[in-house]
Amino acid sequence: MRNIRLIVAYDGTTISGYQRQPKGITVQGELERALSRVCNEPISIYGASRTDAGVHARFQVITFKTESTIPTENLTKALIAHIPSYIVITRAEEIPLDWKPRWNIVGKEYVYTIYNRPIEDPLHMRFHWHVKKPLNIAAMCMAAKYLEGQHDFTTLKGTNSTPADPLKTIYKIVIQEQNQCIRIQVFGDGFLYHMVRNIAGLLVDVGLGRKRAEQIPTFLAAKDRRVIGKTAPAQGLCLEEIFFNEADLQTALQLAEQDKIC
Amino acid sequence: MRNIRLIVAYDGTTISGYQRQPKGITVQGELERALSRVCNEPISIYGASRTDAGVHARFQVITFKTESTIPTENLTKALIAHIPSYIVITRAEEIPLDWKPRWNIVGKEYVYTIYNRPIEDPLHMRFHWHVKKPLNIAAMCMAAKYLEGQHDFTTLKGTNSTPADPLKTIYKIVIQEQNQCIRIQVFGDGFLYHMVRNIAGLLVDVGLGRKRAEQIPTFLAAKDRRVIGKTAPAQGLCLEEIFFNEADLQTALQLAEQDKIC
Repeated sequence: MRNIRLIVAYDGTTISGYQRQPKGITVQGELERALSRVCNEPISIYGASRTDAGVHARFQVITFKTESTIPTENLTKALIAHIPSYIVITRAEEIPLDWKPRWNIVGKEYVYTIYNRPIEDPLHMRFHWHVKKPLNIAAMCMAAKYLEGQHDFTTLKGTNSTPADPLKTIYKIVIQEQNQCIRIQVFGDGFLYHMVRNIAGLLVDVGLGRKRAEQIPTFLAAKDRRVIGKTAPAQGLCLEEIFFNEADLQTALQLAEQDKIC
Repeated sequence: MRNIRLIVAYDGTTISGYQRQPKGITVQGELERALSRVCNEPISIYGASRTDAGVHARFQVITFKTESTIPTENLTKALIAHIPSYIVITRAEEIPLDWKPRWNIVGKEYVYTIYNRPIEDPLHMRFHWHVKKPLNIAAMCMAAKYLEGQHDFTTLKGTNSTPADPLKTIYKIVIQEQNQCIRIQVFGDGFLYHMVRNIAGLLVDVGLGRKRAEQIPTFLAAKDRRVIGKTAPAQGLCLEEIFFNEADLQTALQLAEQDKIC
């Protein structure tokens, strides 16, 4: 028996989310089907993070156990023929039998991208949220500061979700802008359902002047999803990285700090 | 009779090029079909630039004449139902009857985008050329300098094309880099078939150390397509803008100058 870890990236546009479902294409469904063929036995996979329908990933981590003797380095090539082109295996490696992705996470990075221009652009439809009115980025940076640190994030949870523990720590939020694309990097120890998309929605509301950065402590204290505006659409969100040790997380945080614009 | 100008943007991934063809989806074909329905008469359109299969556009300019009395500002809305979502009309305006897009062009801007990282990324497949080995951007900038100005660009033409006039002027090439995306902006008075994709291919060869910047004058003097390497793939290319007056062109060149990294 071997335990194999795959790093998986996907364009989530046509995907009904990470988790296997009776209907629709899912990352788990496609990978289990493909792995079962390649390994010639029924395979179940364990994922580090459940991404929603339409959400992308550059670094999803999954593990599976197999009796197959196929060399790990050949797995990626063998899988290509059995998975859609918008799902890519970027790494495959054998790991200790007791390693589980969810037990080892010290942090995650999500990136939410906004295309900020009055007119629509078909080149930005797939991976960006199109916001037509100009955003005040300085105000968004100020708002982001209020979200950093440990908070009860009940206000920013998904409408119908009941999180086990709403207390999460946001290590850092970095906002970059280039060519009318605004990139919001969010690093944290964990995230509630819809939390990053609600952060993006809230920051955009501040950037548009609908809400003020200084109101954020009050919003958080309310512990009520209804005090904030709409959840930002799925297509702007990408699971960028998952950190399994403190050193990698710290390096990423330092690199992000250098890219800060305010 | 009215003469109408549309600014059109498209994600070229599944498009067989701008020009109408017996088979495949083309921008001209889709727009003529949609406009003929909306205007309720057979419509022929005239485009400013023929983009190739797989090439994108943020600013394609087309004109057509019509007897229809549909208000120009309603055209965009009326067309939406009849064209695929990856073709977007960003502007519609009535222009003098004798205005023809190809007669008024003072310059064009193309952008070629490269994703430069060892591993593949499904979020960068659609609009970027994935180059795995690290590129020396300083060397690429040096190479770009040799291409600026007026030259006989026969060396950089498409293999089977026979240009009427191979003498073209490149006003400026600007190279930017962010998050492993390298963006090559090329401004010129006109371009030969495949010329921008051959520029991108040549700059990448220099960035990889396969060719040297100093060789470029010799390559151009050879007037022989065979002295350079492969044409860069279509999906990295986007027709970014077409300039119809000198003032707009100069403003764009000045803005581009500010973004230069070397």
